[in-house]
Order: sequence, then C-alpha cells, then structure tokens
Amino acid sequence: MSILVVGTVAFDSIETPSGSAERVLGGSATYFSFAASLFAPVRVVGVIGEDFPQEHLDLFSRRGIDIQGLKKEKGETFHWRGRYHEDLNVRDTIELHLNVLSSFVPRLPESYRETDYVFLGNIDPAMQLEVVDQLKHFRLLACDTMDHWINGSPKELRKVLARVEILMINDSEARLLSGEHNIVRAARAILKMGPKTVLIKRGEYGALLFSGSQVFAAPAFPLEHVFDPTGAGDSFAGGFLGHLAKHPSLDRANLCKAVIFGSVLASFCVEQFSVDRLRTLEMPEIYERYAKFRALTRF
Amino acid sequence: MSILVVGTVAFDSIETPSGSAERVLGGSATYFSFAASLFAPVRVVGVIGEDFPQEHLDLFSRRGIDIQGLKKEKGETFHWRGRYHEDLNVRDTIELHLNVLSSFVPRLPESYRETDYVFLGNIDPAMQLEVVDQLKHFRLLACDTMDHWINGSPKELRKVLARVEILMINDSEARLLSGEHNIVRAARAILKMGPKTVLIKRGEYGALLFSGSQVFAAPAFPLEHVFDPTGAGDSFAGGFLGHLAKHPSLDRANLCKAVIFGSVLASFCVEQFSVDRLRTLEMPEIYERYAKFRALTRF
Repeated sequence: MSILVVGTVAFDSIETPSGSAERVLGGSATYFSFAASLFAPVRVVGVIGEDFPQEHLDLFSRRGIDIQGLKKEKGETFHWRGRYHEDLNVRDTIELHLNVLSSFVPRLPESYRETDYVFLGNIDPAMQLEVVDQLKHFRLLACDTMDHWINGSPKELRKVLARVEILMINDSEARLLSGEHNIVRAARAILKMGPKTVLIKRGEYGALLFSGSQVFAAPAFPLEHVFDPTGAGDSFAGGFLGHLAKHPSLDRANLCKAVIFGSVLASFCVEQFSVDRLRTLEMPEIYERYAKFRALTRF
Repeated sequence: MSILVVGTVAFDSIETPSGSAERVLGGSATYFSFAASLFAPVRVVGVIGEDFPQEHLDLFSRRGIDIQGLKKEKGETFHWRGRYHEDLNVRDTIELHLNVLSSFVPRLPESYRETDYVFLGNIDPAMQLEVVDQLKHFRLLACDTMDHWINGSPKELRKVLARVEILMINDSEARLLSGEHNIVRAARAILKMGPKTVLIKRGEYGALLFSGSQVFAAPAFPLEHVFDPTGAGDSFAGGFLGHLAKHPSLDRANLCKAVIFGSVLASFCVEQFSVDRLRTLEMPEIYERYAKFRALTRF
C-alpha cells in the first residue's frame, strides 16, 4: 500500500548537549518519509528552495521515496534553528525562516491522487485540508498538529479532525487542544472531535494509544545516548503508518504493533543528527529492536 | 516471609486540584505498610505523638500490621502540609513540622530483629543505618531516599547504598544522586554505588527497573481521576516488596511482576485521599488491575 506525506522539508540548525549541526536536512516530511519508506512506497508533497542541494534529493531517491510532489520554488528553503536543554524534552526556537514555505500551496501530482495511507504532517490545517480535497481515493487519513495551529487556526483544525481517522500529537498539545490536564480525559475529549484513534507522544516517556475504549502504553526505548531528539515524532509517525500500510488492519493487535514500530523508528532517529541514522537503517535492525521492546515490556 | 518498614507515620494536610484534606493519616511507613500488608505480614518502626488517635492505630491493626515498633512520644505527630499543582507531578511544601520525629531514634523490638524483607523508607540515612545495625538476620534490604539527604548527608547515604540490594527512587533524585541527566546512565552509575537493582519511579509515566544489565519498563495505570498523588511511591514500594516477600525470587521475571504489583498499588493509592482506598482494597481487585496492566502493555 502506498503512503503520501505532506509536510516540511527543511534545513535544521541544532544545538544539543551532545553537539551541534548546521543546516542539516530536516523537516517533518523528511523524517516521516525516511522512516515510512522502510515499510512501503512513500510519496512526498512539500516545497524546497533553490538552495536545496541535489545530494539531499539523492538521499530521498536512494530510499525509493517518490519526490515528484516536492516542488522547487524561487527563494530559500525553510530553515529552523533550535537549541535543546539538558532536559531534552525542552527546546527553544532561536530562528525560524519560513522562506518558500510562506507561499506554499500544496498541489498533488495526478499520480498521487489515489493513495492508500495519508499523513498530514504538522503544517497549517488549511493546507492539510487542501491536500485532502485533492485526493480521489484513500483508505486512511492521519495527521499531526501543534500549539501554533491549536491556538491560531482552531476552526480549520476542527475541520481536519472531523475527517481524520488518527491524530498523533504531543501530550502538552493534547492538553491544550482538549482543555483537560489529565491525559486520559484529554484523549477521550479528542476522540469526540472526530478521530477514532489518538496517539499521544510523550518523548522519553513513550506513547499512549487511545482507540475507542482501548488503551495501549508503550515506553520509549531506554537509550544511554540521545544525540538529537529532532524528528523523533515524525519518525514515530513514519514507523507507525509504515507498518499499517504494510499490514493493513486497524484491529487492536495491529495498532499496538504499529506503536512499537513507531517507537523503534523514533529510537533510531535520535541516535544521530538529521536523518544520519535513518538513512542507513535496514529492516533487520528494526526487527531486532522490536524484539528488545518485547523483552523490555513483557512480564 | 515477614516485612519490616521504618519510616514516617504522619498527619498530612493536602490540597489537590480535586479537593483538600486536613490532618489525614499519612507518612511513608503508613502507605508502605497498608500496601505491603495485602501480601505478607508487616512490622512498622516509627514514632507518633500524643495527638495520634486510637482510631488510626485501629486501622493498622485491622490490616494485621504489627505496630509494636511504633513508639508514642511526648509531643505532636509529624505534620506535612502540601499543595499540588494542576500538573500533579509538581507539589509545594507549605508547612513541615517534624515534631516528635526530630528526636526519633529507631529501636527495634526484639521480635523484629529477624525479618526477611526490610524497607528503609525515606528518612535520615543515619537512622536507616541504625535500623540495619539492629538486625540480626535479613534476606533483603531495600531503601528510598530524597534530594534532602542526597544533598545533606551524602556520606551516610553512600553507606546505606553500599548495603542495600534495591534502591527505589524518583527520576529527578536519580539524576541528582548520579550527576547524570540521561536516566539510563543515571541508573548505571547508581548500580555502581552498591544496589544490584534500581527502581526509578516516574509518577504518571510509570517506572523503570534496572537490574544488572537488564531493563524493564512499566507504564503507570492510565486513570481518568487522580485524586491525590501523596503516598504513591511508598504504596509502589509496598506492593513491590510485598510481592517479593510472598514469592521470594529475585530473577528477572519475578522482579518484573513485583514492579507491576507496585504499579497496581500506586494506582489504587491515588484514587482517594490518605489510605482511604488502600484500607478497603482486597486481593481480587489487585489481581483484576494486574490483568489490566497486561492488556495495557501486551503487543
């Protein structure tokens, strides 16, 4: 089954307690597609500037990622500069240059309009809706969002939520969206907004899946060295939807497996800067860590 | 197998977003013993003041808890007043009256000196050592501690750590004790200080068990209403050591089960103020929630 992702393709400049990286390949669609492409064919919708190097495009192609929908526009590529605290759950945005993203209107190539699994990465909900409207056929819609849109575009976001099957969101954003501090009540409130499944990402504390009345809890993989948390959430989404695209069932057992594959991809993502770990990752390593998750949680 | 606990027996005055309670029964030894007594016979070493009512003592007795070692001294009982934030992981101490605790010297009744499982609750490490020195025989020592002792009595605490088999500690305290921010490195550093097993409590995010090179991760039970988090850590310790006293093996499988029983007891504890939930709790309810933990984590 095919997967379509719309999101950012960016340059990230990052400082973490472990080191720093300048203008490396980043963005939600990048992390998602590198993770998901290990499971199923991936198509990207996004925008880059004239400064985006061919070698980065080659990285996508080498993973078999379809970048027909990645438009090159006049101007510079979206650039984010951030700094992580000793507590890697906390980060500051130092610079944010939307550049070509500010005038981006997503256009799906004809060949993308029938896609089985669609991930609406963390962009303006109005853009997310534009993508959905261009689809002729899909099996499952999933989306991410953030505080900026929850506060700034609540109406458009509600329209997105009414149409998606799965929402993947950080715990603090789930609280903001629902107005509930308790995470169980927050998830239950969000389930009433439309999605049948809410996946709450909690960084180093793992993830909670709420699906109907069911709950599943997964820890994060305990790593001795977390190099750079950037992209962990999108890698999670890529592993999660990648598994669902490969094994298309939405029963509880399969959703739980998808959460673990998501956790596995996130755990690899944070071991190096940018997609440095994801771009060399192979399925046997994924299965090996999946087995370690079983040992980590089984009693 | 018998269990001995030394710790505080206290009056707690608590405000949480769900309500408030004035001078209710609290203290580490109280929560621990109410939880552990569901699994095995428990003996308490602690001190109370003349204001401690008989009805509270009757609650201990009704659970079959041996309170021979609970000394009544001239003066008032230890009293803590605290307020929890909307984020229940954060609390402020408003008042702290040590009262009879300030001159407490633990004395073990002769009948306590041979005890199989010993929990050194969160008190002055010098007092914890005094208890250990009075023991003629034991199978396993476990302890808790806090930032106050990590900062104020590092030498005595190191002596305690060199003697205990198991340390149970909050994540922030594990970081403080080890000087490591990453929780895996923090646990590994603590394992070098003496304990063979470190159990790291993470509140609503669950617990991590590090035992030799093994790791086990357990979520907290997702509750829609957390009424009062006070005593959750000590109830956890009570369920954990209670299970080990009932099924005395320290192999990985049994330690993991003990972590889940600890999580179960903590999840019941927070459903009401004080020991109100623990004092009516029965084993069938514990097994039922244990089964729910399996469903919550199994993939």
